[in-house]
Amino acid sequence: MLTPNRHYAELKDSYLFARIAEKTAAWLSAHPGERLLRMGIGDVSQPLCPAVIQALHAAVDDQARKETFHGYLPECGADFLRETIAAYYGSRGVSLDPEEVFVSSGASDELGHILDLFDPSSPALIPEPAYPAYVDASVLAGRRIVHLPTGREGGFLPEPGPEADLIYLCSPNNPTGSVLDRERLRAWVDHANRSGAVILFDAAYEAFISDPALPHSIFEIEGARTCAIEICSLSKTAGFTGTRLGYTVIPRELERGGMRLRDMWVRNRTTKSNGVSYILQRGAAAVFTPEGQRQIHETLDIYKANARTLGEALDRLGIWYTGGKNAPYIWMACPGGMGSWAFFDKLLSEIQVVGTPGEGFGACGEGYFRFSAFGDPADTREACGRLEKLLK
Amino acid sequence: MLTPNRHYAELKDSYLFARIAEKTAAWLSAHPGERLLRMGIGDVSQPLCPAVIQALHAAVDDQARKETFHGYLPECGADFLRETIAAYYGSRGVSLDPEEVFVSSGASDELGHILDLFDPSSPALIPEPAYPAYVDASVLAGRRIVHLPTGREGGFLPEPGPEADLIYLCSPNNPTGSVLDRERLRAWVDHANRSGAVILFDAAYEAFISDPALPHSIFEIEGARTCAIEICSLSKTAGFTGTRLGYTVIPRELERGGMRLRDMWVRNRTTKSNGVSYILQRGAAAVFTPEGQRQIHETLDIYKANARTLGEALDRLGIWYTGGKNAPYIWMACPGGMGSWAFFDKLLSEIQVVGTPGEGFGACGEGYFRFSAFGDPADTREACGRLEKLLK
Repeated sequence: MLTPNRHYAELKDSYLFARIAEKTAAWLSAHPGERLLRMGIGDVSQPLCPAVIQALHAAVDDQARKETFHGYLPECGADFLRETIAAYYGSRGVSLDPEEVFVSSGASDELGHILDLFDPSSPALIPEPAYPAYVDASVLAGRRIVHLPTGREGGFLPEPGPEADLIYLCSPNNPTGSVLDRERLRAWVDHANRSGAVILFDAAYEAFISDPALPHSIFEIEGARTCAIEICSLSKTAGFTGTRLGYTVIPRELERGGMRLRDMWVRNRTTKSNGVSYILQRGAAAVFTPEGQRQIHETLDIYKANARTLGEALDRLGIWYTGGKNAPYIWMACPGGMGSWAFFDKLLSEIQVVGTPGEGFGACGEGYFRFSAFGDPADTREACGRLEKLLK
Repeated sequence: MLTPNRHYAELKDSYLFARIAEKTAAWLSAHPGERLLRMGIGDVSQPLCPAVIQALHAAVDDQARKETFHGYLPECGADFLRETIAAYYGSRGVSLDPEEVFVSSGASDELGHILDLFDPSSPALIPEPAYPAYVDASVLAGRRIVHLPTGREGGFLPEPGPEADLIYLCSPNNPTGSVLDRERLRAWVDHANRSGAVILFDAAYEAFISDPALPHSIFEIEGARTCAIEICSLSKTAGFTGTRLGYTVIPRELERGGMRLRDMWVRNRTTKSNGVSYILQRGAAAVFTPEGQRQIHETLDIYKANARTLGEALDRLGIWYTGGKNAPYIWMACPGGMGSWAFFDKLLSEIQVVGTPGEGFGACGEGYFRFSAFGDPADTREACGRLEKLLK
């Protein structure tokens, strides 16, 4: 008799976004014809940029003719894209071998699959509030989780402390929008090198950093090549949430127990994958051209303006928050000590604005609330106007 | 100190296709300007069909405009594609709920990831010769493997016997091209239902079945809904090897240890994936339209003609083989009791034909050799001519 993976039974009952979807669906069915302003889930609202669209069309045409048709691609990524991404790091002063770059189907997929590299007995440190899938993927593997709560007094920035073998860091952070500066990130790198831990650095939001003093990549920090894996995504950088493509950097120097994690990942990909679609890899490469970079930054500017609109509204209301300056998320204290699901219900029912309750990102998120800057600009302005009227 | 997954060290040194690539690269560098006839790796040679190309272009255009742009899709697959695939099964007399259909990035990816559903203590039965990734993915999970050798006397068809909790079946088979008929497949289903095992049924080559008496899906067999997961791919069916898309069927009735595997897989996908590209899902849906079906069968007919050409050449040479009739692979006995790597080297050096040594698919494949029917028709004819001249 087959034994199922019993760890599924240890997962918490309801996934945050599923519960939000249920509540909004219930409200809409009770109020037919009305419209909600969605400032919750971190999906983008702007289309792919013209350079990417053009590259996607050209790649589709390649697949239409025998002379230009592409079958199986290398499992770790097409050379043209690995080289392009390595050059992008190079332009920021980080030197990478293209063979240290792996093309993925996206950061969320990769954050789940990369755990295959580690023995389940190695506990994971998860600074909270955190993206719920960090916790759930570790639960499914039967891995012990060391929760590291952060709070308002420290600006929701985690500091090295409890021992664990795997360390999740997300900067700019989802959900808090806080960013680790070079000094704080160096402290984590030093800590991991001392203890033999490995940092999984989720850099999905690096494109939102405007302050030139802040690091985009953990590999800007000396010593990171012996302790870190960086997981990146074009989802928020270039609107690929529904198009799907990401990339992962594993330096050659990263060894634990005498095994090179990069070489193990090559073996994992050649066993458990047949690579990422040629069409999507061509589209992704266009993101890194001068034209693509100019175009994606026009779109990023729209989201950054949304974040400013949100921040200014909260400033006028005198509400405490983090994020919004180098990140697409704003993390606010619920007014009057309200609980985060109560605040969710209040915004939904009274001003038809949907945000994300902080409690869904871990217990220390209770009393806080996340707004996303990925919405439509007009909707964002309208939502901020309603919020100011409601709370002032 | 982080402990790496030590099972990586238990993998065999060289992956079959990597070794072939090395040997062919070495030959080509020693013989500059010469060309090889590639009848080895199972990659397709014909482009995507016009209906798919048109759908891909239309989907790219959808991603170019805000009004039609798609962000995150449902993690288990877009409704339009799940419904289309369920209807395709319906047209073959297999009734499925679209929520039993999961869209994947391809069968090889899914065969690796689906193991997350099972406790690593459950041993896996792998009939051999087998696709090497079956074995490697189980090794990485630390799962015990029960090898079930098949041979010439039984037509390389596996029969139920040794007990195990997970049973891999691939029909039409890679590499042998043999196909389980209804009676043999029913014996496996009955066996799994009796023992509580779960069958992972790899149906990647179902489109090559011409004989109407042979089952395309395990769900054509009574009782399969309580013991089987079916893993499918458009790679060979519609030329998606470099475009990437597959699908998986997990019936609601499939339970082990009181847990529903379908519901567990929903939870896995929502944790470890953000779904498959909208563009690729639109392209895939076009495969199942009447126009798409007509067009892919024109291409499948090219490959079937290649298989016939290969089979007729071996018939004339009086060489024993399986497959080629309802499968894109031909599995031949190496002439004169030659070893399969020796035969590989002989074909490479003497007639510049590249095939796949049977030994790479398991010890019982020694002395056999795989040809693929996915090559270019002119190359296939040329290769067969050279083969007849060499061996007669």
